[in-house]
Amino acid sequence: MSDRSVFFVSDGTGITAETFGNSILAQFAIKPRHVRRPFIDTVDKAYQVVREINATAVREGKLPIVFTTLAKEDVLEILLTCQGKVFDMIKTFVEPLEHEFNMKSNHRVGRFSDVAVDREYHDRIEAINFALEHDDGQSSRNLEVADVVLVGVSRSGKTPTSIYLAMQHGIKAANVPLIPEDFDRGFLPSMLKPYKRKCFGLTIDPQRLSEIRNERRPGSKYASLENCRAEVNQAEAMMRREGISWLSSTHKSIEEIATTILRDIRPDRLIY
Amino acid sequence: MSDRSVFFVSDGTGITAETFGNSILAQFAIKPRHVRRPFIDTVDKAYQVVREINATAVREGKLPIVFTTLAKEDVLEILLTCQGKVFDMIKTFVEPLEHEFNMKSNHRVGRFSDVAVDREYHDRIEAINFALEHDDGQSSRNLEVADVVLVGVSRSGKTPTSIYLAMQHGIKAANVPLIPEDFDRGFLPSMLKPYKRKCFGLTIDPQRLSEIRNERRPGSKYASLENCRAEVNQAEAMMRREGISWLSSTHKSIEEIATTILRDIRPDRLIY
Repeated sequence: MSDRSVFFVSDGTGITAETFGNSILAQFAIKPRHVRRPFIDTVDKAYQVVREINATAVREGKLPIVFTTLAKEDVLEILLTCQGKVFDMIKTFVEPLEHEFNMKSNHRVGRFSDVAVDREYHDRIEAINFALEHDDGQSSRNLEVADVVLVGVSRSGKTPTSIYLAMQHGIKAANVPLIPEDFDRGFLPSMLKPYKRKCFGLTIDPQRLSEIRNERRPGSKYASLENCRAEVNQAEAMMRREGISWLSSTHKSIEEIATTILRDIRPDRLIY
Repeated sequence: MSDRSVFFVSDGTGITAETFGNSILAQFAIKPRHVRRPFIDTVDKAYQVVREINATAVREGKLPIVFTTLAKEDVLEILLTCQGKVFDMIKTFVEPLEHEFNMKSNHRVGRFSDVAVDREYHDRIEAINFALEHDDGQSSRNLEVADVVLVGVSRSGKTPTSIYLAMQHGIKAANVPLIPEDFDRGFLPSMLKPYKRKCFGLTIDPQRLSEIRNERRPGSKYASLENCRAEVNQAEAMMRREGISWLSSTHKSIEEIATTILRDIRPDRLIY
């Protein structure tokens, strides 16, 4: 166990505080203990967190690091009395922006408005439903409204990427597998024909693919390196022939794959 | 169209820069034009972004706002020459932390390590697969390894919450609907019996539920306010009787629902 604690303190979910803090901590070769404290939205709760931070400081003999996105002045004021090193994202950046925009900030708590009336949120949920309904070539219904159709061999990363595109970006992503039958016929699955311009391919190193498939079906032909090599070769040849651009998911997270796809096929979504 | 542009510039996916920037901008009653510029990892690409920012400054007659998380010194240096107001998350917070930790930062680019060898990433993908296989009561196989089982009436938000818990937190979440047949019998679905302690309920305002169901099946009995009222009442009565705690998803985003569930059922996940 590390002898240094990091607290993420927020009046909302703490997701922003955590993303923010983790990207800072990633700059250091240190693995501190992480403590999340979401929904700290009253003075009483703030006092409780301060007591916890102070007790940690005594126990560890080091200042705990505190990443916070508290927007409420009175709650923040209490937190600032703690025996920790506080990094306050809101205060640090909001005040200079007030000057630049020449307007006061509204100290809104959290990053989410009421979801029941939020159009953007509604679209994200719709996109998630779309991704699920169009997972693994399940349905060709409404494929004309898809923003992108991911293609690739089984277990190349299509499903998690589709769902991530929906959840994070509200992008409607369908996905359709390329299977041995398609390679035998030598054509893309027929449901894709009208939507070739929307297709984006995922490929993967055969060795890695074989590892992933072996977790699912150990020792199967499906998972064998030989079969994986053949499928990947045929899929890449097919995508090349059909003019479908693709990327390799082997060393990329779904976040990186999604960002690359967004940049390549929907540049308008990069300005929104 | 707004007459003020905001740029998100990153050497990785830009997700951190965007989350960071959006949470700052949420403090202001202003809706600027958003421009994402991910994967800016060379001096040449940085010059290109600087030209774009400068052209925008001339066109709009206002300083563009630039949120950046560039970790590479030489790339950042170029960006800092632009005619925009730059908010640099890394530099602002990393230097004070170097002092506190008494170590130099490693200026690592991006927040993702190589996914092919990253255990945490592997677990997240496994959790996503688990959520999909256990969506909507599809399977009771392996339910013993679920971290949580979400229950609630159809369209109360179980599916997106399960997937979010998996994707963001690597939590294995199954979900099982409570349907009229369960209310008639007066018992929880039998597959839930051994796992009651892991159950967490979602409920929803009947009016809102009726709106959501009407988008799917307009004018159906399923979507009628009367039926939604009855189902919600019966589901809440059942959860109360079985000692299952629940929350209302009516005005909550999936991020907020997930964080609440995490806090309530897996408080250990708040410290990691």
